[in-house]
Amino acid sequence: MTVTRGGILVRELLDEYGALTRSALRRWLPQQQPRSYLYDLAADYPFRGGRMMRPSICIATAKIFGAANDDVLPAACGIELLHNALLIHDDIEDESQERRGRPTLQRLAGAPLAINAGDFLAFLSLRPLLQARERLGARMVLRMFEELDRMAQETAEGQALDLGWRRDNLIQLRETDYLEMVLKKTCWLATILPLRLGALVGGRDPLDLEHFVRFGFFLGAAFQIQDDLLNLVGDHQHYGKELSGDLWEGKRTLMLIRLFERANPDERERIREVLAPPREQRTSASVQWLRKLMDVYGCIEYARALAHGLAGAAVHEFELLFGDLPDGRDLHFLESLPRWVIERA
Amino acid sequence: MTVTRGGILVRELLDEYGALTRSALRRWLPQQQPRSYLYDLAADYPFRGGRMMRPSICIATAKIFGAANDDVLPAACGIELLHNALLIHDDIEDESQERRGRPTLQRLAGAPLAINAGDFLAFLSLRPLLQARERLGARMVLRMFEELDRMAQETAEGQALDLGWRRDNLIQLRETDYLEMVLKKTCWLATILPLRLGALVGGRDPLDLEHFVRFGFFLGAAFQIQDDLLNLVGDHQHYGKELSGDLWEGKRTLMLIRLFERANPDERERIREVLAPPREQRTSASVQWLRKLMDVYGCIEYARALAHGLAGAAVHEFELLFGDLPDGRDLHFLESLPRWVIERA
Repeated sequence: MTVTRGGILVRELLDEYGALTRSALRRWLPQQQPRSYLYDLAADYPFRGGRMMRPSICIATAKIFGAANDDVLPAACGIELLHNALLIHDDIEDESQERRGRPTLQRLAGAPLAINAGDFLAFLSLRPLLQARERLGARMVLRMFEELDRMAQETAEGQALDLGWRRDNLIQLRETDYLEMVLKKTCWLATILPLRLGALVGGRDPLDLEHFVRFGFFLGAAFQIQDDLLNLVGDHQHYGKELSGDLWEGKRTLMLIRLFERANPDERERIREVLAPPREQRTSASVQWLRKLMDVYGCIEYARALAHGLAGAAVHEFELLFGDLPDGRDLHFLESLPRWVIERA
Repeated sequence: MTVTRGGILVRELLDEYGALTRSALRRWLPQQQPRSYLYDLAADYPFRGGRMMRPSICIATAKIFGAANDDVLPAACGIELLHNALLIHDDIEDESQERRGRPTLQRLAGAPLAINAGDFLAFLSLRPLLQARERLGARMVLRMFEELDRMAQETAEGQALDLGWRRDNLIQLRETDYLEMVLKKTCWLATILPLRLGALVGGRDPLDLEHFVRFGFFLGAAFQIQDDLLNLVGDHQHYGKELSGDLWEGKRTLMLIRLFERANPDERERIREVLAPPREQRTSASVQWLRKLMDVYGCIEYARALAHGLAGAAVHEFELLFGDLPDGRDLHFLESLPRWVIERA
């Protein structure tokens, strides 16, 4: 894979804005008592070295529209804290084993304390915005809370679909079901909220914000599909999660939905049976069978093609949204993101 | 037990303000899709018929200081939504079996969807306040969020202590440890926040709010001890939770801490052993042994006496805080609460 100029810029800005956000996060994650029961747990995921895509999108967008770093850092911190809160709960809900190259928090601390640390982080995500009241004004802070409120509902609905489909072993799903779930579960927090908060802080009229949904959706959906692909074909060291973990967890990925569509009746029956029991009762042989059948039916290639299409649509939306704005690093960052999300390893 | 005039008033006001709050809650808990995966789950606990003590304290306090019902209902709804969010997560953390006379949500829907419904409710608790912005003004709404922010931290710290002590099988705890845990885990959300938000909406100067901590602490700690007592000696039908569930869960109640203090070295060793394994490995015989040893050492009576003392201290604090205010039902309600919390069955 050739690394494009855009790809280099994306990594540079992720590093730069990621470091900025991480440094600001320390203020909100103090080392105090009870440490081993709460504060150390809350600070664990945020400092494991994620990509920091969410805060970086927020910061870049705000700067494009004229904000200073200090204007947007509260929103960037809030988004990252909330993201980590939900990662903790997701990992418990999914019974995930690894996160960013280490055991998931519930494996280290037990599920009860991990759930509580997630609750703490979720509320803590409001604090940077609350304390930005003097700088940004009460109205702006409340507008940002309204955005969080919308996002939280969308995210909970998307997560409910994802978990409910698995619990009830629904498998005859359509691509549109998948995309609706991803729009809600992934895109609102990963891309749409960062774009919208960035634009708000940068002084855009709130009425404009609906325009960011489509760009965020295409970008975020491409991101999620690539994430699911890396789960199947990625490099474990780099990926930081258990490979094929999604199959163990029975996650309704695009590849699994496609597999079920293409499979013959006998295979469908077997797929249902493989996915029916809880994770710990699935066998390595059955997971490998699923994985191989995906190759037989070209599910990986199919998903790659859709991710590509979505990334292309995101670039098109970018032009409509940002095409008239003056050139600059932040603009190039957003422009280069769609390609980066589908090429990253 | 004789029912006092104050006890009757408390029940009347709980009924009245509870009904008011429950009716207002319907607006925030719509029946929409995905219903069985999210909205029905989120609306389950709130409509199981809790006592509604938290919103009632908030409404009564606000009215004492001159607020109208519509001024305080957003805060009352927010408090009740948040309380139910944390109940869902608590029940998972504690592996509780029953809540308000029915199976806990994780037993009905599975832990993953229950965790997600709790997350949804926690964020939803902000919405009534956000949407009260026109009526109450941006400044007031932000002040209330600051109160929630403080409460959320205290609650998470208290919950962390409660869960951490159990996970690590700490048992040599002192009464002051217990009271600090209860102040954080129970009182901030159960009494202190409702008092403070009520006073805020009623127009009290924010600087006054610290005064409510002590009254809320005495009242809330008496409430928690009585709750723990009912778990051991209550009427199951009325109580709505599994009797002796706290012993099964290894909860560090005042009675258990007292038991360990009074027990001889052999008994201490045995208590440690009984509490060491996870819930599902505890036996009915060992739980009954713990329960009987509590009678041997008078732990129930000891806890009753402390709850009594705390309720008396709450009445004293009430006089200091509210003694100069004009008479009325709301004032009598708050005055009668300390006795009610320790006499309720």
